[in-house]
Amino acid sequence: MKAHIINIGDELLIGQVVNTNASWIAEQLNLAGIQVEKISMIRDDKDAIVSSLDEAGKEADIILITGGLGPTKDDITKYTLAEYFNTKLVFHEETYGNVVSLFKSRNQEVKDRNRRQAEIPESCIPIKNLHGTAPGMWFEKNDRIFVSLPGVPYEMKPMILDYILPKLSERHDISVIVHKTVLTQGVGESLIAEMIGDWEDNLPQNMKLAYLPQPGIVRLRISATGDEKETLEKQVQEEIDKLKSIIGDIIFGYDRDTLEEVVGRILKEQNLTLSTAESCTGGYIAHLITSVPGSSAYYKGSVVAYSNDIKIQETGVSEETLKNHGAVSEATVIEMARGIRERFGTDLSVAVSGIAGPEGGTKQKPVGTTCIAIACSSHITARKFLLGEHRERNIRKAALSALQMLRKELTKCN
Amino acid sequence: MKAHIINIGDELLIGQVVNTNASWIAEQLNLAGIQVEKISMIRDDKDAIVSSLDEAGKEADIILITGGLGPTKDDITKYTLAEYFNTKLVFHEETYGNVVSLFKSRNQEVKDRNRRQAEIPESCIPIKNLHGTAPGMWFEKNDRIFVSLPGVPYEMKPMILDYILPKLSERHDISVIVHKTVLTQGVGESLIAEMIGDWEDNLPQNMKLAYLPQPGIVRLRISATGDEKETLEKQVQEEIDKLKSIIGDIIFGYDRDTLEEVVGRILKEQNLTLSTAESCTGGYIAHLITSVPGSSAYYKGSVVAYSNDIKIQETGVSEETLKNHGAVSEATVIEMARGIRERFGTDLSVAVSGIAGPEGGTKQKPVGTTCIAIACSSHITARKFLLGEHRERNIRKAALSALQMLRKELTKCN
Repeated sequence: MKAHIINIGDELLIGQVVNTNASWIAEQLNLAGIQVEKISMIRDDKDAIVSSLDEAGKEADIILITGGLGPTKDDITKYTLAEYFNTKLVFHEETYGNVVSLFKSRNQEVKDRNRRQAEIPESCIPIKNLHGTAPGMWFEKNDRIFVSLPGVPYEMKPMILDYILPKLSERHDISVIVHKTVLTQGVGESLIAEMIGDWEDNLPQNMKLAYLPQPGIVRLRISATGDEKETLEKQVQEEIDKLKSIIGDIIFGYDRDTLEEVVGRILKEQNLTLSTAESCTGGYIAHLITSVPGSSAYYKGSVVAYSNDIKIQETGVSEETLKNHGAVSEATVIEMARGIRERFGTDLSVAVSGIAGPEGGTKQKPVGTTCIAIACSSHITARKFLLGEHRERNIRKAALSALQMLRKELTKCN
Repeated sequence: MKAHIINIGDELLIGQVVNTNASWIAEQLNLAGIQVEKISMIRDDKDAIVSSLDEAGKEADIILITGGLGPTKDDITKYTLAEYFNTKLVFHEETYGNVVSLFKSRNQEVKDRNRRQAEIPESCIPIKNLHGTAPGMWFEKNDRIFVSLPGVPYEMKPMILDYILPKLSERHDISVIVHKTVLTQGVGESLIAEMIGDWEDNLPQNMKLAYLPQPGIVRLRISATGDEKETLEKQVQEEIDKLKSIIGDIIFGYDRDTLEEVVGRILKEQNLTLSTAESCTGGYIAHLITSVPGSSAYYKGSVVAYSNDIKIQETGVSEETLKNHGAVSEATVIEMARGIRERFGTDLSVAVSGIAGPEGGTKQKPVGTTCIAIACSSHITARKFLLGEHRERNIRKAALSALQMLRKELTKCN
C-alpha cells in the first residue's frame, strides 16, 4: 500500500516551523507496513492544494493531508476539499457538540467562527478531534483514500493512531510487520554496534535492526516481516533475549518506555520515596520525574540549588567541601544527596552537580563534567561523567544518566 | 523570484530523520526575498527525481535539490542529473584535490569510490564543499537554475550562504518580503482573532497576517511584500504599534524570543534575583529559567514541594491554610511565594500550585485548576487559572502563565 503526505501551511514554506508532522506520520505509516512515496509541503492556496491532490491521487492509495483546518481566514482546506470532492458543507450535530463541550471546559463562549468549524463536507466521514475543534475528514474517491487532519500535532496524532491506522490495517494489501524497540542508556552507538556486531550479523533473513540514537539514549529497533503476528512476536522475543545476555545492563525498557516511568514503576512497587537535589540540571530531573502521572505517590520534591550558598543552606553541603573540592565533585554531590535525603525524609535521593556550559569550564573540569550521587539507607554511590560541549544536550544527558544510575542502584539498595 | 526545494532521501520518507534542511533553506530563501512555492521529499529513485525536476521546472525560477551525493549505492542524484541535463561526467581536477586534502586531514586513504566523487557533469558549475567530498552543482536550463547540494547540513549551509544566495542576488530583481512575528501569552487564538479583527481587516493590500498557535502561546506573523526592505520594515512596525494599542498587555516578545529569555533579560537589566516554588509544574519552571545561558546571574534556585508536608517544611505554608483552603488555592501560593522569597533571600519569587491531572480533580477544582503567586518586596499578587485537561499541556501552560505573570509584575514591583 502506498501513501503520499501533503502538509499545508505557509509557515512551513518560510521555514518558521520545522515539519515534524511529516516525519512522525511517515514513521507511523512505515511501522504499519505502508510505504510513503512522497511528502509535499505546500501553501494555504487553493490551486496548490488541488494540484497536489491530483498528483498524489495518481500514485498513492492513501493520501494524508495536514493543516488549514483552523478557524481563521488562512484556513481554506475544508472548503477546497468540499469543492474538490464535489460535495457541499452541512452542519454536523455531533461535531458541534464536541466544539461546545471543549469551549465549556475552558470557560469560553462559542462564537460564530467556531460554529462554522462544525460544518463538514457531506460526503466525508468525520473523525472526532479529542483535543480541538476541527474534525478530521475521511474521503474516498476512485479507490483512493484522502484524509484531512489538523496540523496541530496533539490533535492529529490520536486520529492517526486510534482511527486511521486501525481502519487501514483491516485491508488486505499490507504485510505483517512486528517491531520491538530496545532502549539503552549509558553507552554510545558505535560501541554498542561493536558489542552486538556478531548478534546482528546472525539475525534471520526476515529480520532487520535499526539504530536510532538520541542524546543520551540509543534505541535499537528490531523488525520482523512475515505472515503471522504471533510467530513473528516469538521470533523477536528470542532475539531480544540473546541481546539481553550481551548488553542487558544498559537496557532500561522497551518501545515507549521512558526512564522516568521505569524508575517510577520500581519505586511504586517497592513502596519507596525519592527526593532530588539539582544544580546544573536546573529542575529538569524533577520535571521528568513529575511528568509521570501519579508520581506524587513516590516523589516528595526537590531543591534546585543554583548557587553555592543555596547548596549549603538547603542541602547541607559543608563550606569546607565546596572550598576543597569545588561544587562539581563527587564529594559535593555525596553531601547533597545525604543532605536532601535526610531533610525530605525519603528512602532514596539523587544529587547532580555539573558544568552545563557554554561558560564555566576549565582544563581540569571542562564543560560537560557532571557528578552524580545516589543515596539510600545503606550507602551512597557517586560517579563522574564527561558529557559533551552542548548545554541543552548536557542537561538532558545528565538527567538520563542520573535516572539510569538510580535504576541500577534500586536493585542494590535495601 | 520563486523557488522549489526538493529533498532526496529514503530516510526522510520512513520518518527516521526530521527534515530540518527544508525549513532552514526555506528560511534563508525567504529572508533573501525569494518565495518558496513548494517543498518535496522524495525517494533516492531516478523516476521520482526526474518527475520532481519536471514539476519544479514548470513553476519555479530556482530549484534547490539536497541529498543523494554520497559515495554509496543509493546515491544516484549526480548520475540522474547528468542524464537529465544531457551531459556527460568528466573528471574535475580541483574537486579531486579537495577530496584528497580532506582525507589527508582525517588520516584516511582515498578509495576508488571517493575518486568517483570528483567526476562532475560537464555542463555544471561545481560549488566547493568546505567540509566534505561532494561538490554542489549549479545547472541552468531554459532560464531556470537547478542547484544540487549535499544533504549533510554543515556541508550544505555554507554553499547556500556563501555562494548561492550572493550569486542569486546579483542576477534578478527579487521582491522583498519582511516578516515579524508577535508573540502573545494568556489569551486563546479565537479570542485574539476577535479582538484584532478590525485591525486585521484594515491591513494594507501588500500585508498578510498568519496565526501560529502552540499550547499557551499564540504567535501572530505579520508579512509585507514590496520593493524596498526599509520601507516594508517601517510599514510592519506601524502595524505592530497599532496592534500593541489593542493587545499590548499580552505581547511578551518577537520572532525567536522565549518568555524565559525575556524575563531573564529584565531581571538582569534591573539587577534582580529570583527563586521559585513549584508543585504541579514539578520543576519545569526552574528548567525553563535555567535553560537560558547565564541564568545563574539572577536565579538562585527553587523548591519543588510535591507533597503537602514538604510545602509546610520547605516553603512555610501554614497547616491551617492548607486545611482551610487546600493546596490549590490563592492563599496557599501566596504563602509559598512569601516563604520561598524570604528563605532564598531573593528580590522576587514565583509560586505555583495546581492540578495537572489526569487524577486529582473535583467539581469545585477540576483538573487544570492552577493558582500562581508572584511576590516582590512591595506586594504579593495571586491569580487562579483554568487551563485544560491534558497533563503535559497543563504543566507547559502553567509555566508560561507564571512567567507571563512575573513579566507583568516586574513593571509594578519596585
